[in-house]
Amino acid sequence: MFLGNDMITIEDGKLKIDGHDATELAERFGTPLYVMSETQIKNNYKKYVDAFKRYEEETGKEFIVAYAYKANANLAVTKLLSKLGCGADVVSGGELYIAKLSGVPSNKIVFNGNCKTKEEIIMGIETNIRAFNVDSLSELILVNEIAKEMGEVANVAFRINPNVDPKTHPKISTGLKKNKFGLDVESGIAMKAIKMALEMENVNIVGVHCHIGSQLTDISPFVEETKKIMDFVVELKKEGIEIEDVNLGGGLGVPYYKDKEIPTQYDLADAIINTILEYKDKVEMPNLILEPGRSLVATSGVLLGKLHHIKETPVAKWIMIDAGMNDMMRPAIYEAYHEITPCVIRDGEKEKVNIAGGLCESSDVMGKDRELTPIEVGDVVAILDVGAYGISMANNYNARGRPRMVLTNEKGVYLIREKETYTDLIAKDIVPPHLL
Amino acid sequence: MFLGNDMITIEDGKLKIDGHDATELAERFGTPLYVMSETQIKNNYKKYVDAFKRYEEETGKEFIVAYAYKANANLAVTKLLSKLGCGADVVSGGELYIAKLSGVPSNKIVFNGNCKTKEEIIMGIETNIRAFNVDSLSELILVNEIAKEMGEVANVAFRINPNVDPKTHPKISTGLKKNKFGLDVESGIAMKAIKMALEMENVNIVGVHCHIGSQLTDISPFVEETKKIMDFVVELKKEGIEIEDVNLGGGLGVPYYKDKEIPTQYDLADAIINTILEYKDKVEMPNLILEPGRSLVATSGVLLGKLHHIKETPVAKWIMIDAGMNDMMRPAIYEAYHEITPCVIRDGEKEKVNIAGGLCESSDVMGKDRELTPIEVGDVVAILDVGAYGISMANNYNARGRPRMVLTNEKGVYLIREKETYTDLIAKDIVPPHLL
Repeated sequence: MFLGNDMITIEDGKLKIDGHDATELAERFGTPLYVMSETQIKNNYKKYVDAFKRYEEETGKEFIVAYAYKANANLAVTKLLSKLGCGADVVSGGELYIAKLSGVPSNKIVFNGNCKTKEEIIMGIETNIRAFNVDSLSELILVNEIAKEMGEVANVAFRINPNVDPKTHPKISTGLKKNKFGLDVESGIAMKAIKMALEMENVNIVGVHCHIGSQLTDISPFVEETKKIMDFVVELKKEGIEIEDVNLGGGLGVPYYKDKEIPTQYDLADAIINTILEYKDKVEMPNLILEPGRSLVATSGVLLGKLHHIKETPVAKWIMIDAGMNDMMRPAIYEAYHEITPCVIRDGEKEKVNIAGGLCESSDVMGKDRELTPIEVGDVVAILDVGAYGISMANNYNARGRPRMVLTNEKGVYLIREKETYTDLIAKDIVPPHLL
Repeated sequence: MFLGNDMITIEDGKLKIDGHDATELAERFGTPLYVMSETQIKNNYKKYVDAFKRYEEETGKEFIVAYAYKANANLAVTKLLSKLGCGADVVSGGELYIAKLSGVPSNKIVFNGNCKTKEEIIMGIETNIRAFNVDSLSELILVNEIAKEMGEVANVAFRINPNVDPKTHPKISTGLKKNKFGLDVESGIAMKAIKMALEMENVNIVGVHCHIGSQLTDISPFVEETKKIMDFVVELKKEGIEIEDVNLGGGLGVPYYKDKEIPTQYDLADAIINTILEYKDKVEMPNLILEPGRSLVATSGVLLGKLHHIKETPVAKWIMIDAGMNDMMRPAIYEAYHEITPCVIRDGEKEKVNIAGGLCESSDVMGKDRELTPIEVGDVVAILDVGAYGISMANNYNARGRPRMVLTNEKGVYLIREKETYTDLIAKDIVPPHLL
């Protein structure tokens, strides 16, 4: 029905998610409502495992999917992925906490980020994570110092900045020289860091890491990235440094636009595996780690909003729904496109409308100039592909509580996040005595 | 010291807020930390009251400041403003709840927004607010219906779309024909709505309303707006409709750039008052309502972050601080400029640096190419003018708890918001039994 959204069907003019009528879900749980499909998450995960099985077979090494928690760290989602055998890419103490709570084994947890604090590093060492993906010389020195104080040895990988253009939105390009991330290879900073680490007593060099950006719809930057990192592994070998893990980060895109096929996990696997295998005679084959976020969960999520008002202006027809930019920031922050469809498909001619959320800000528009089937006040509207960077960036702007979330599978519907109430909005606020 | 930030001083090379050493505040309360100056908020509010006193004197009518809660609805901030006599511009049930809790009298509460729900309208009618600023015909009909069911009469004002270019950032321009807000005047939709309301038994027409955008640094759009709305009041009078309240919305900018003076409350008052007075012979002078948000609180807020890592790349020097885009979205969402300064001013040559937060996203950069005095790991950095649209848009992206907030005055420092903990991050999450 919709490219990438296998869990969505339309039956008798009604949109269903894992067989559950979307309008009924909206009535039962209220709107706005996030619906996450367990079935779709499982499918997405399985594609990675299937596609990369060949890597394990041909190299005898491990392939690990470390889910990028930043995409969606709802506890039911992280538990589900953990039960499937998925690891965790965490970027904060909070994400590490959630990964542990979700039962992810410590040897499947990697810790990213350009500003790890002392407390976070302690937590990572205590957990004995697979690797800190070290982002700067400063961090390397701090990790070694803290490990020494703790009488431990910390596993470190080195995030290199390969200067590869991912051809995606500038806000989510991460592997260019001008970005804040990683250790530069060309100028020798990355090599300098690794040589420093060799001399340190409390760090254990396990790998190299790279992440060039998010929502990539072209495979060639991945090939370029893989070559750059493998070339670096060859260089390291010449210096006598053996690398166990190569981590290529995440970044595979999802089909937000339903009329355009984009590369799949299988295309990605072919490109990466073939590229790495070219180095078979030059270096020991490494374990392979990927950090997908969006491509695991985005397509599984639907945001339902109820239509409260219709307004005709001299230049447009607006439909006003109760799902807004505080629930889902992507259109406001990235001018992101998301497919939007009524949950009841009525007969009649399609009409061009703008779909707005209810916040007092002009960027709170979910879609412009969309051709929708006839729609009425009270109808429920579905915004697709919101499973990633939806609830994770949601906020209380305009004093709106964040919405409920349910998980669906073929058997049932499960509440996985409760709505925030008015009192939740001020639960952390304190009025000092002189203002009472 | 800094334009607009009267509460900030630098003494012996140390940045102080209301006389309190910023570095000491950061050590005492932890970082990231929002510091809000009570003194500065009072100053900003007083300027509005002073500047518009002449309106009350010359017309014998009321002038009301309805603070736009969306800018910052922390309960201590709203309580403070309420105690000063300030009203409330609310845009959701949540904001109305906070306004009531803050003791704002109902006749100083106005309710804005393009997608008011039935529940919100009931709440507004129960509170007997000064006015619903009605945004569409659909809303007008709903308000009348609900009031009828409740056996009440609802006060309504009409938000008109004047098609005035505010010359600000497109995401915060609200009074253009293409924006989602308001009833179009030129095409007669606004007049049609008001005539419909005249025939309705359960609404009471009290005013007209307009809001053209935010962060205006030019007075002329306000003059144009005032003329358009007063011309409309004249038209209404010809139809036998008397208007009690004219609400011109908010929008006055603040000096984010410290080298550029911008119009003040006094300039705004002169322009608006003089324009309205030109209509003295044509219509009864109305009460005047303004809805400032940013200009009341932005300059009072400082976000403190601690420097954890310094990184030199071939193209830039980066300093990594623990205040990031989840704490303060403005640079990421609006490419906003905020003045940034170390809290300890060291001797030595200034150096060009980029200031990044710790989130795994390339848009998490607080400032680029800033000339700062020498700075070291462990130092505290202050991001200025974050009192508006800072904490109100803050979120848990990257599983980071929202930060603590303190209020300062010349007498002391008061905790006004507690930090979110790891368990807070998952407090609303529920794991269904089959995933345990």
